[in-house]
Amino acid sequence: MNTIFRGKDFITLEEWTKEEIDTLLEVSKDLKKDFAMGKTTPYLPYQTVFLMFFEQSTRTRNSMEAGITQLGGHAHFLDTSTMQVSHGEVAKDTAVILSRMGHAIACRNCFWGIGNAYLRDMAKYSSAPILNLQDDLFHPMQGLADLLTIQEKRGSDVKNLKVSIIWAYATTHKKPISVPLTQSLLFPRYGMDVTLAYPEGYDLPDWVVEQAKKHAESTGGSFRITHDQEEAYKDADVVFPKNWGSWFKNPSTEVVDAGLEANKGWKCTEERFALANKDCLYMHALPADRQNEVDASIIDGPNSAIYDEAENRLHTAKSVMALTMGGRGRQ
Amino acid sequence: MNTIFRGKDFITLEEWTKEEIDTLLEVSKDLKKDFAMGKTTPYLPYQTVFLMFFEQSTRTRNSMEAGITQLGGHAHFLDTSTMQVSHGEVAKDTAVILSRMGHAIACRNCFWGIGNAYLRDMAKYSSAPILNLQDDLFHPMQGLADLLTIQEKRGSDVKNLKVSIIWAYATTHKKPISVPLTQSLLFPRYGMDVTLAYPEGYDLPDWVVEQAKKHAESTGGSFRITHDQEEAYKDADVVFPKNWGSWFKNPSTEVVDAGLEANKGWKCTEERFALANKDCLYMHALPADRQNEVDASIIDGPNSAIYDEAENRLHTAKSVMALTMGGRGRQ
Amino acid sequence: MNTIFRGKDFITLEEWTKEEIDTLLEVSKDLKKDFAMGKTTPYLPYQTVFLMFFEQSTRTRNSMEAGITQLGGHAHFLDTSTMQVSHGEVAKDTAVILSRMGHAIACRNCFWGIGNAYLRDMAKYSSAPILNLQDDLFHPMQGLADLLTIQEKRGSDVKNLKVSIIWAYATTHKKPISVPLTQSLLFPRYGMDVTLAYPEGYDLPDWVVEQAKKHAESTGGSFRITHDQEEAYKDADVVFPKNWGSWFKNPSTEVVDAGLEANKGWKCTEERFALANKDCLYMHALPADRQNEVDASIIDGPNSAIYDEAENRLHTAKSVMALTMGGRGRQ
Repeated sequence: MNTIFRGKDFITLEEWTKEEIDTLLEVSKDLKKDFAMGKTTPYLPYQTVFLMFFEQSTRTRNSMEAGITQLGGHAHFLDTSTMQVSHGEVAKDTAVILSRMGHAIACRNCFWGIGNAYLRDMAKYSSAPILNLQDDLFHPMQGLADLLTIQEKRGSDVKNLKVSIIWAYATTHKKPISVPLTQSLLFPRYGMDVTLAYPEGYDLPDWVVEQAKKHAESTGGSFRITHDQEEAYKDADVVFPKNWGSWFKNPSTEVVDAGLEANKGWKCTEERFALANKDCLYMHALPADRQNEVDASIIDGPNSAIYDEAENRLHTAKSVMALTMGGRGRQ
Repeated sequence: MNTIFRGKDFITLEEWTKEEIDTLLEVSKDLKKDFAMGKTTPYLPYQTVFLMFFEQSTRTRNSMEAGITQLGGHAHFLDTSTMQVSHGEVAKDTAVILSRMGHAIACRNCFWGIGNAYLRDMAKYSSAPILNLQDDLFHPMQGLADLLTIQEKRGSDVKNLKVSIIWAYATTHKKPISVPLTQSLLFPRYGMDVTLAYPEGYDLPDWVVEQAKKHAESTGGSFRITHDQEEAYKDADVVFPKNWGSWFKNPSTEVVDAGLEANKGWKCTEERFALANKDCLYMHALPADRQNEVDASIIDGPNSAIYDEAENRLHTAKSVMALTMGGRGRQ
Repeated sequence: MNTIFRGKDFITLEEWTKEEIDTLLEVSKDLKKDFAMGKTTPYLPYQTVFLMFFEQSTRTRNSMEAGITQLGGHAHFLDTSTMQVSHGEVAKDTAVILSRMGHAIACRNCFWGIGNAYLRDMAKYSSAPILNLQDDLFHPMQGLADLLTIQEKRGSDVKNLKVSIIWAYATTHKKPISVPLTQSLLFPRYGMDVTLAYPEGYDLPDWVVEQAKKHAESTGGSFRITHDQEEAYKDADVVFPKNWGSWFKNPSTEVVDAGLEANKGWKCTEERFALANKDCLYMHALPADRQNEVDASIIDGPNSAIYDEAENRLHTAKSVMALTMGGRGRQ
C-alpha cells in the first residue's frame, strides 16, 4: 500500500485509487483530532502553496488558508486579474516559475471548456503538485469532505447507503456541474446506491454516467438516474439537493438557464424530506439558496450536516496538502 | 485574580474588570519589551485570526497583522464585499464555520445601529472569541492603547490626571463616536478627571454619560461635560482633540454633518494648547485631519505622543490576542 | 570584510561595495542550495516585511512573499490605494509607524521623478531598513538576480564577458529605465565589457554613463554606447534585449513613446542572435513582449535563461532580507 504521494497532482479523484483516497481520509481524521486537541501539526514548515482563484470563493479559500497555516506553511494569493484565462504558453510560464518558488499550485478555474484543461496544462510544466480547487468538471476537495462527513455520521462502511444527488432550483448564480459530477463518480466507488435526480435538460456528460456505472458494478453499489424528485428522496440515507447549470447541453452562459423557471418546483421541502429515512442527512456544499433550494426547517434542522461538512473542508484540504506537498520533483 | 481569558470575547471593555484590564496592560508592556529586545513571542503558533473589515483601516489592520505574526500565528483576511452587512442568520453561518476553522474572529463594522449588534450576534454562535476592531459604539483596542500610552508617560497611577476629550472640526470623513465613547467609559475607571467638550448637537448617548459618571464616583475621579473649548484645555494633562459625527442625534449619513460648518472654530491651536499644563500630552488615534483638527506645530511638536500611541496599538493588540486566543470553546 | 548588514538600506547597489555585493551573492547561492535540499532557513522568525506596491508586480511580489515565508517571516501588504504618492510628511508618518511595528519596509514606486525620492524620504525616518523593489531609476533586486544567473552559467569570474543591454520595441506598457540603468552601473564593476545599444532618443541620464565608465576603468572592463543593434549582438556572451521608455528626454507619460513606432525593427531575431557567441545567454526580467521584443525560438530556445533568472529573484531577495532585517535601529 503506497502512502507516499509527494509531488502527486490532485486534479481529479479518478487518478487516485480507493486505497489512496482511504489514506487521504485517514489523515484527515487524524488532523481533525489533533486540531481539536490543540496539538500543532507543522508538517510543511515555511512552505508556500500558491492560490489562483479565477472565481471568488469563501469555503475553499478559508479552508486552504487556515489549513496551510495549521501545517506551518503559507497561502500565497496570486492576482489572477492580470492573468489571461487561457492555456498553453501562459500556463507554462506560470507553472514553471511558481513551482520553482514554492511547493504547490492550487487553482480554481471554472470557465466552461477551459478550467480542467488549464490545470492539466500547468501539470505538464510544473515541478510541484497541482491542486484542483474546483474546475468546470471536477471538485475533488468537496467530494472528499462529503465522503468524510458521511463516514463520520454513518461509519466507515458506507456500502449500500442510499445517497441521492438531486437538482434544485436556485437563482443565485450559474453553478458549475463539478459538485454533482464529482459525487457521481466518487460515491459508487464506495459501494453506495447513488440516485442522480434532475429535470430534463440538466444531464451530466455521458462519459460520467458510464464511468459511474462501471464504478458501481465493481463495488456492488449502483448508479441510476431519475427525473422524479420523490423517488430520489424515498428511503434515502443522505440527500444533496443542489442547483447546477445545463452546461453540458448549453455551454453558453446566456442560455444556460433558459429552462430554469419551469423547474421552480425542484426544492427540498419538509414534505419531500419526510419521505427519506428518519436519520437521513441533509448536506450542501454551501452557499445554499435558502429561498429556493431548501426549506429553512431542513437546512437549520437536526438532520442538517452542513457545518460539519464545511469544517471537513479544512481537514481534508490539510490532508491533501500534507501528503502531496513538501517534495521537489514529481511523481 | 483571574488571568485566564481564553475564549473570552473582547467586544467592549465594560465586560472586563479593572483587574482584567490591568492584566491586558501588563502583558502589553511585557510584549513591547520583548519586541524591542528581539525576543520572539510565539504564543499562538499556527493559529488563525480571521479579520473582517467592513470599512478600510490602516492602523488596525497593521497592528493586528504584524501582531499575530509576532505571536506565531496568521491574519486571515475575509472578503467582506461578498458578505451582507446585516445580522441574524448570516452572522450565524459566518461565526459557526469560521470559529471551527480558526482561533478568533476579529471584526470592524462601524455601520450605525448595526456594528455592535453584528458582533454580539456572532458571539452567540462562535466557538472562538470575537474581537472588536471598532464598531458603531466601541473601539476597545484604541482605548487600551491610549491608556497604555498615558501610563508610560505619566506613571501607572493616573488618578486625577485632567484628561480632555475634545470635539474638533474635520472634513475628511464621517467619523464614528466609538473613540470618544470608549475613552469616556474607560478613563473614569482609572480615577481620571475627564472633561468631554463638544459643540451643541454632538452629544454621546445618555447611557454613556450616566455610566461614565458612575465609574467616576466609584474611583474618586470625575466626568463633566462642557461646550467651552478653552475650559477643556485649561490645566489639562492630556488632550484628545478629534472629530466625531452627530450620529446619536442624526443617524442618517446625509444629515449627520449638517451642523458641521458652524463649528469650524473647534481646533487644537497653539493658543489653546498653551492653556494646558506645560507637559500636556497631545494624542490622536490617527489619521488626523492636519488642516482642520490641529496645528502642525502641536501634532509634530515635542508634546505629541501620536507615534507612541500608534505603536502601542501593536502591543495591546498582541496582548488581547495572546490572552483570549488559543483555546477551544468559550468562557 | 564586513558581513553584518542589519539595518542597512537596499536602495541602490551603488551604496554597497563589491565585497558586500559578493556576500549577497554568496548567501543567495547558499539559500538556493538549501531550498533545493528541502533544508529550512528560518533566519527571520516571526518578522514582518511591509510590502508597498504603487504599481502591480508579479515576479517581485512572488519572490518577496515566498522568500520571507522561507525565512520564517511574513509579507504584509499595504493598501497603497489610500496612500498619497508624494513625499515629505506622509512618507514620514508611514516610515516611523511601520518601522516601529515590523522589520523592513519594501517598496515599489516607479513614478518618474518621485519613486527614488520617496524611498530616500522614508529612509530618513524609518528605524528599519528600506528595500527597493524598483523605483523610477533603480531596480537592484533585478540587477542582483541577473548577476547571479550569469555567474551560475559562466563561472564567478565574469571579467571581460561581452554583455549587451539592448533596447527592444514593445507595445505592452511604458517601461521604466531602472533595469538597464541598474545593469549599466553594476556589470562594469565586475569587469564586464558592457555595450548599451539603443535608437536615438532612448538615452540614459549622463551621470549614469559617466559613473558606468568610471566603474569600468577601475576594474579593467569597458562601457560603450552604440546605436547599431548588430554591433551589440556580435560576439556577445550575454544579451538583454528589452524595452524602456524615453523618460529622461520626455518625462511626460503622453509623449514618452512618441518616437516608438519608428523603432519597430529593434527586436531580438534569430538572425541577430546568430551573430552572438554560440553559447550566448538570452536573458529577460519578464514579462516579455513575445510579439515584439524577441522571436519565440530564442526566448523558448536552449540559450534562454529566463526561468533561472526568474527563480534567482527568489534567492537574491531572500539574501537581501536575511542580511538586512532582524535588527532594531539602523546602520
